[in-house]
Amino acid sequence: MKALIFEGPGKKSLQERDIPAVQNPTDAIVRVAKTTICGTDLHILKGDVPPCAPGRVLGHEGVGVVEQAGAGVTQFKKGDHVLISCISSCGKCEYCRRGMYSHCTTGGWILGNTIDGTQAEYVRIPHADTSLYPIPDGTDEDALVMLSDILPTGFECGVLNGKVQPGASVAIVGAGPVGLAALLTAQFYSPAELIVIDLDENRLEAAKRFGATKTVKATGEEAKRQLLQLTENKGVDTTIEAVGIPATFELCQEIVAAGGVIANIGVHGVKADLHLEKLWSHNIAITTRLVDTVTTPMLLKTVRSGKIDPKKLITHRFKLDAILDAYGTFSKASDTRALKVIIEAD
Amino acid sequence: MKALIFEGPGKKSLQERDIPAVQNPTDAIVRVAKTTICGTDLHILKGDVPPCAPGRVLGHEGVGVVEQAGAGVTQFKKGDHVLISCISSCGKCEYCRRGMYSHCTTGGWILGNTIDGTQAEYVRIPHADTSLYPIPDGTDEDALVMLSDILPTGFECGVLNGKVQPGASVAIVGAGPVGLAALLTAQFYSPAELIVIDLDENRLEAAKRFGATKTVKATGEEAKRQLLQLTENKGVDTTIEAVGIPATFELCQEIVAAGGVIANIGVHGVKADLHLEKLWSHNIAITTRLVDTVTTPMLLKTVRSGKIDPKKLITHRFKLDAILDAYGTFSKASDTRALKVIIEAD
Repeated sequence: MKALIFEGPGKKSLQERDIPAVQNPTDAIVRVAKTTICGTDLHILKGDVPPCAPGRVLGHEGVGVVEQAGAGVTQFKKGDHVLISCISSCGKCEYCRRGMYSHCTTGGWILGNTIDGTQAEYVRIPHADTSLYPIPDGTDEDALVMLSDILPTGFECGVLNGKVQPGASVAIVGAGPVGLAALLTAQFYSPAELIVIDLDENRLEAAKRFGATKTVKATGEEAKRQLLQLTENKGVDTTIEAVGIPATFELCQEIVAAGGVIANIGVHGVKADLHLEKLWSHNIAITTRLVDTVTTPMLLKTVRSGKIDPKKLITHRFKLDAILDAYGTFSKASDTRALKVIIEAD
Repeated sequence: MKALIFEGPGKKSLQERDIPAVQNPTDAIVRVAKTTICGTDLHILKGDVPPCAPGRVLGHEGVGVVEQAGAGVTQFKKGDHVLISCISSCGKCEYCRRGMYSHCTTGGWILGNTIDGTQAEYVRIPHADTSLYPIPDGTDEDALVMLSDILPTGFECGVLNGKVQPGASVAIVGAGPVGLAALLTAQFYSPAELIVIDLDENRLEAAKRFGATKTVKATGEEAKRQLLQLTENKGVDTTIEAVGIPATFELCQEIVAAGGVIANIGVHGVKADLHLEKLWSHNIAITTRLVDTVTTPMLLKTVRSGKIDPKKLITHRFKLDAILDAYGTFSKASDTRALKVIIEAD
C-alpha cells in the first residue's frame, strides 16, 4: 500500500508499505477513504515531537471502512463505515474510566506518532471498539474528517475548558483550523463577542464568514491595545490560545479579564513566562488539555442536525498519490489560503 | 489613638493618630478588639505592594465593636460585635453582583493597603453593611480573627479552586498560616492524602498535628523526587501553592498529576516559568484568586459547630502597645515558632 512516511526532521516521502495486520484481538484494520493533514504533522516534521520516530506513517485523522476486525472486537465488523478518533483508548484503564481518554495508558495520541497512522491506504486501529465511531448512513464523510481531531480539540480544549457562556466575550488567538474549529463550536453557547486575532488577512476573512463578531489583525502590544479598546479595558472572559508559541500565550495573559479563563489549545515546544506578579490576584484559570474526544458523539449530532457545518473548513482536495502536493499546499497556507485539505483514496 | 504606621520599605512605628471619622453614610467606625499580622503586611514592609503608601495604618484582619454607624448603614448599630472582612465590597458593582467581591470597583483589598487598616484602636470600614459580619453571641473571638483573611483565603483560593475531592491526593507547598488554613479546610472534603511540603521542621510538626497525612522537608528536585515516590510517580490531584515564589510554583508544575489542578494562593512579586512544553498535553488547570470572602458565612458555621478550630493557629498574644514586639516575633517565625499572633486592645 501507499503511505506517507516521516523520515526525520524536514524529510518525508510517499512509499510502498505492507498492509498492516491485526496484532491484538482488539485491533481493527481500516481501509482509509479520506484523511487530512494536521498542524501537528507539521510540528512532527519540524522535529518538535520526539516520540515520533523516523519511519512512521503519519496522520491521525480520517474516515474509512473496516477491512478486518480482530476476534475481540464486538462493536464493528467488516464493511462498517467508521470515523477514526485521533485518540485511541482502551476504555478500561484508570484514565479511561475517568473519561480522560487522552491519557489512556495503552493509547492516547499514538496514531501517526508512536504507531503508524492514517495517511496511507490502510491503518491498524488498536482498541477498535472504543477508538472508532460508527458513521450513520447518509452522513457527509468529508465533514466527519474534521471530527477526528480539530472539532473536538477546538471544542474541548478551547470552548469547554474556556467555559464559554451566553453573553460572554471570547477572544481566539490564532485563526488556523483549530482556532476556527473553536470559533464554530463556541457559537453553541451564544457568547456576545467572538473576537479572532491573527496576522493573516485570509484567515481573518474566513473567521468573519464563520461567525467572528470582530477581527484583530495585529500581534503583541498592538493586539493588546485593540482588544482592551474593544472591551472597555476589561479584557475578555475567555481567551483561547490556538497558536502554541510564548508570544501568543503571553498576549492571552494581557487580555484576559479578571475572573476569566485562558484555555490553551496550542502545542507548545518551549516554556512561556507566566506573569504571576500581575495574575496572582486576577482570579483567573489557565487550562491545558490534550483532547479526550469525549464529545465526539455530541459533535456528530451537531453535524448531522446541521447545527454546524465543518465542511466549511475544507479548502483543497487531493488524491493520496498527490499527498506531497497536499503537504506543500497546507504548509504554505498564507499563500495557498489552505485551511483543511482532504486526501482521498486513489 | 495608637496605630501601627507603615513608613516606607523596612520602616514602621507605633504612633498617635486621630480616631477615624465617618466619611460616607455607608461607613462604620469599629473599635478594634483583636487584630493580627499577616504575611502580606511583611510583603508591604519589604516594599512589594506599591499601592500601599507611607503613612498608612496597616492591618486587614480583626474583630471589634461598632462605635458609630453612618446614616446609610442598616445592618449594624453601635455596640454590635463584628468580624471585619479583609475584603471591602459595595455589594452593588458588576463584580460584587457576580460574587467577585475581591474586585469590587470601590473596595476589594483596600484595608491596610490603600486606606487605613485595623492595627489601631479604631478603623473606618467602608461599605459596612457588606464588609462586616455579625458575631453571634458566645462565639470565640480569637478564632474569628482567623476568619478575616487566612481561613477564607486558604479555603477559597486553595481548597475550592483546587477542587479537593473525597479520596483525592493533595499537596500543600508551604506550611505558613495560609498553607495551614488550607490544610484545615481541605479536610472538609475528605481527601485521602494531604501532603505538606516545607523546610521548617516546626511548621511541619504543626502540619502533622493539624491533619497532614505526610510531610516532606525538602525543596526543588528532592521535594519532587519524594512527592513522586509517595504517589506512584503520578503526582497529586491538587497542588496548593502557598509560598509565592517562582521555585515553589515550578515545584507545583512538577508534582501535579495529569488531570490535576495547581491552585495558587501565594502573593507573587515576579513572574515564573510555565512549562507549557510539558503541560500543554497534561490536562491541568492553574488557578489564581484574591480571596472573595464569599465563604465567610459558611466558615463561621464550621467554627461555631466545632468542625474546625482555627484557634490552633494562634501561638502568641500581645497588647496593641507591644505591636512592634509582635512584628518581631511574627517575622522571625522560624526562631519563635510563631504561626498567628493575636494583638489585643490595651
